[in-house]
Amino acid sequence: MKPEVFCFSAYVALLSFACVGTTQAADSKLEKAVRDADAEWSKVAVAKDLDKTVAFYADDAVILPPNQPAVTNKDGIRNLWKGFLDSFIDISWKTARVEVAKSGDMAVLTGTYEMTMKDGSKDKGKYCEVWQKKADGKWKVGMDMFSSDLPAQSSSSPGPGAAERK
Amino acid sequence: MKPEVFCFSAYVALLSFACVGTTQAADSKLEKAVRDADAEWSKVAVAKDLDKTVAFYADDAVILPPNQPAVTNKDGIRNLWKGFLDSFIDISWKTARVEVAKSGDMAVLTGTYEMTMKDGSKDKGKYCEVWQKKADGKWKVGMDMFSSDLPAQSSSSPGPGAAERK
Repeated sequence: MKPEVFCFSAYVALLSFACVGTTQAADSKLEKAVRDADAEWSKVAVAKDLDKTVAFYADDAVILPPNQPAVTNKDGIRNLWKGFLDSFIDISWKTARVEVAKSGDMAVLTGTYEMTMKDGSKDKGKYCEVWQKKADGKWKVGMDMFSSDLPAQSSSSPGPGAAERK
Repeated sequence: MKPEVFCFSAYVALLSFACVGTTQAADSKLEKAVRDADAEWSKVAVAKDLDKTVAFYADDAVILPPNQPAVTNKDGIRNLWKGFLDSFIDISWKTARVEVAKSGDMAVLTGTYEMTMKDGSKDKGKYCEVWQKKADGKWKVGMDMFSSDLPAQSSSSPGPGAAERK
């Protein structure tokens, strides 16, 4: 083997080893970054800061709320969240599972939420959020879907479960 | 520059160029593979083949159905789908958007469904599916969430929208 070929092979081998060795650490770091972003999002929603809450969505984000069609534009997302913030006294959500793509540009979070409405009713349910890592390194929500765990209630008779909102 | 250093630099430059050049083609190929898998899944569901339908889920898959807690195990997924297959006459779903992680191991599909129930009622809604590329190269569904677009109906008064099922 020529020295330069050997050097190149050794370099590639070393690089491969380094990549394998850091994959898990990188995964943990990425998972933490997304969990932190999600926790920050939760905080601004609890604080009812509409501007900061909707700023977590990517420009091309979609929300898939129950009992209405998908919301696919910024004004729609803002109106939806305005309605949420006007309706609840308290909200909290907790991410149970995070899955990050190997390339570190996409993450799927699933978890559960609890909410107390202004009329005293309570709701609880689950959600799936798809986060995208943007060119500037910031994580943004590209898809947000949620639904109540409670039995369906007619929308003409409000009560627990009628408010299927995160 | 020494010849071996130049050769190595040229190799890396060529490799980088080749990677950029094939990214879009690889994306299209991956997107097609997931779309094809989803279309195949739709076919076996329409054919009411329970075994083949649930075989599309990954071992650790979760379903997040409306008005009930998350389903997080194989028996639960099978029972849920048995209920669906027993309830509808016809189902169809159409994926509108596919997003594939750069690493090609994760894809998010969003789209709409339509369903006609045995009692003649109809439902329509939207879904999000997260697919994972497994070690054997096969795509499996890791997360499946869906909800009706129709106004909520009390589960004690069946009608359109009561059947919030994909």
